[in-house]
Amino acid sequence: LPSKLPAGKTSIFSIMSNLSRKHKTIDMSQGFPNFETDMKLKELVCKAMKDGYNQYPPMNGIPELREQIVAKFDNLYGKKYDETTEIIFTAGATQALYCAITAFVHPGDEVIVFKPAYDSYEPDIKLAGGKPVFVQLKGEDFKIDWEDLEQKINSKTRMIVINTPHNPTGTILREADMLKLEKLLENTNIILLSDEVYEHLIFDGEQHQSASKFPGLAERAIVCASFGKTFHNTGWKMGYCVAPEILMKEIIKFHQATVFCVNHPMQRAFAEYLKEPEHYLELGDFYQEKRDKFLELIKDTRFKAVISKGTYFQVLDYSEITDEYDVDFSKRLITEFGLASIPVSVFNIDGKDNKQLRFCFAKTDDTLEKAAKILNRIS
Amino acid sequence: LPSKLPAGKTSIFSIMSNLSRKHKTIDMSQGFPNFETDMKLKELVCKAMKDGYNQYPPMNGIPELREQIVAKFDNLYGKKYDETTEIIFTAGATQALYCAITAFVHPGDEVIVFKPAYDSYEPDIKLAGGKPVFVQLKGEDFKIDWEDLEQKINSKTRMIVINTPHNPTGTILREADMLKLEKLLENTNIILLSDEVYEHLIFDGEQHQSASKFPGLAERAIVCASFGKTFHNTGWKMGYCVAPEILMKEIIKFHQATVFCVNHPMQRAFAEYLKEPEHYLELGDFYQEKRDKFLELIKDTRFKAVISKGTYFQVLDYSEITDEYDVDFSKRLITEFGLASIPVSVFNIDGKDNKQLRFCFAKTDDTLEKAAKILNRIS
Ligand SMILES: CSCCC(=O)C(=O)O
Ligand SMILES: CSCCC(=O)C(=O)O
Repeated sequence: LPSKLPAGKTSIFSIMSNLSRKHKTIDMSQGFPNFETDMKLKELVCKAMKDGYNQYPPMNGIPELREQIVAKFDNLYGKKYDETTEIIFTAGATQALYCAITAFVHPGDEVIVFKPAYDSYEPDIKLAGGKPVFVQLKGEDFKIDWEDLEQKINSKTRMIVINTPHNPTGTILREADMLKLEKLLENTNIILLSDEVYEHLIFDGEQHQSASKFPGLAERAIVCASFGKTFHNTGWKMGYCVAPEILMKEIIKFHQATVFCVNHPMQRAFAEYLKEPEHYLELGDFYQEKRDKFLELIKDTRFKAVISKGTYFQVLDYSEITDEYDVDFSKRLITEFGLASIPVSVFNIDGKDNKQLRFCFAKTDDTLEKAAKILNRIS
Repeated sequence: LPSKLPAGKTSIFSIMSNLSRKHKTIDMSQGFPNFETDMKLKELVCKAMKDGYNQYPPMNGIPELREQIVAKFDNLYGKKYDETTEIIFTAGATQALYCAITAFVHPGDEVIVFKPAYDSYEPDIKLAGGKPVFVQLKGEDFKIDWEDLEQKINSKTRMIVINTPHNPTGTILREADMLKLEKLLENTNIILLSDEVYEHLIFDGEQHQSASKFPGLAERAIVCASFGKTFHNTGWKMGYCVAPEILMKEIIKFHQATVFCVNHPMQRAFAEYLKEPEHYLELGDFYQEKRDKFLELIKDTRFKAVISKGTYFQVLDYSEITDEYDVDFSKRLITEFGLASIPVSVFNIDGKDNKQLRFCFAKTDDTLEKAAKILNRIS
């Protein structure tokens, strides 16, 4: 039986989460919070079910929720999307990313991916028959190497994937980056896939630079976003994407084919809940406190941090402690010390091991304290 | 921008449902009930959310639900699936069908589809670069034409799609059909995709003949099933598929890529609810009453029925009333008479118009009576 993805492997998130469950560790591996989503939101789902919203919603989503999201893009990023033709809800941002890549990447097409990168872009590109072309982010703060990028753009380049705030590094793209990218893509047909699932998790007074904010990017951008990351319910599997109609009409063919539509009572609940934008506007401050607490607790260890500017991930360099391969070290952290993380090599070109682990700090203070105790003990 | 599916259209279900919403009709078009899912099931979802099951579940689903489904296949069809490697939950059966087709159909491969057929198989096959090869079901009761089928099987045939109980015709495959198919596929590598979303909706004392029941089919079969169709909550978008490990390990690569995992609180709820199998074992009787009521109410009209044996659809022939094109007639039924149905031509080869409409009778008695009044008025 010929395989479409012979090298296709179980995601590192499954591997580490399963190992963590088995060993009952402090789990800072896969990106999800260990505290609860708002009771009010749960009650809104219950109300929607009781009110009878249990059958197929429209394929592109209920109008009430589409209106809310379109208004959000207008308010925060000054971009007006059409609420009937330029937005769909998806079964998590994962499905949005998959549909966006699959709809446009034809066999032989090249797709530029900055590395390190979240681990789903590459298999999506390969499953579509495309070729991922990697651009290494440079230096401590993982800057775009513009020369390298320019050199790698050619007539086969169908798409560029960006991700800000950035998983796993916790860096962000600045206005100047977006303007440079806008300039670079001028007069090309290159599609921009912008993974913005951590858009509201941004720290130290920085502003999220959505691709939708920049006209020369917005006209070619598919912006993917997540309710799960924003509202602490990754297990509800609700996300969305917005794009100009010319792009969305192709994406929607894959949306129709892959899932047709997504959870109706949860759409109702979000439509209601989003009427109060403070639910997401206060998120940066909330997670900044978590980050600061975690960093403070480990400041005397030999784990070295380049401080996260966004997302709920903090990468720690452990090279002063051991020169073990990061996958081995992260597994030993689980089995010997009871703490789960993600080895950063899985995000790197050719799995390069830089002696780094990624820790998800979307955890209760108690969990952060217990984790820090372990890290202090090792150090 | 080259399209992967230039002819890709909005599904007829979206078109008729939207038209029906707009005209506020009696809606017997898209396949969903207009009565409520069990309050107990809704409460189980609420409880799961309150108990904190709101983050990512395992990629292949929670063990408690996998165990339940595996036990069901053993109890009902005598087939033992491995609960860790041979089952996944999906965002509706739609996602299971998509992943099954996409994982195995390579460019140039042929896939045999019996017509009339549910409208998602064909785009899924084309999106994968495959070629749908149609076998027309014959006669009033839509029997398989075995000679035609045999002739169309060749070295390019990668997969055969079956669907029992059958949407839209309401026919079912019998034991003899399955045995013939088993014999025919012996010594081939052809994969069988068995769409069994209406498995429990079967009437007149007939037994559902699952592909999983027949060893020579089960070894090559991907069986797709639906919680939405079974438990009256199509809007929750929960389904699953089972397959031998050798097939599942390829399907799961697409599952991981398309959605990664599905709704956690709803998985919890179903795991609890399924402990009482009478919830689905009584479903056939329940829908048989609906069918009988509907048929009784329209028996004096000139709409002619070949009685549905399964599913919640009844096809009606209107050729004695008008010779209008079925798409036009079904639209006029909405705009002039306030009753929505689905024109059967969309399921036929080359859109052949046989003057038939499909009515979904998963409706309250009140709705069935109002619909029947309209059909009597027209007749
Ligand atoms: C869909 S599982 C991946 C979770 C995640 O975003 C991460 O841990 O990086
Ligand atoms: C996923 S929408 C299709 C609903 C359905 O199964 C039908 O109406 O045939």
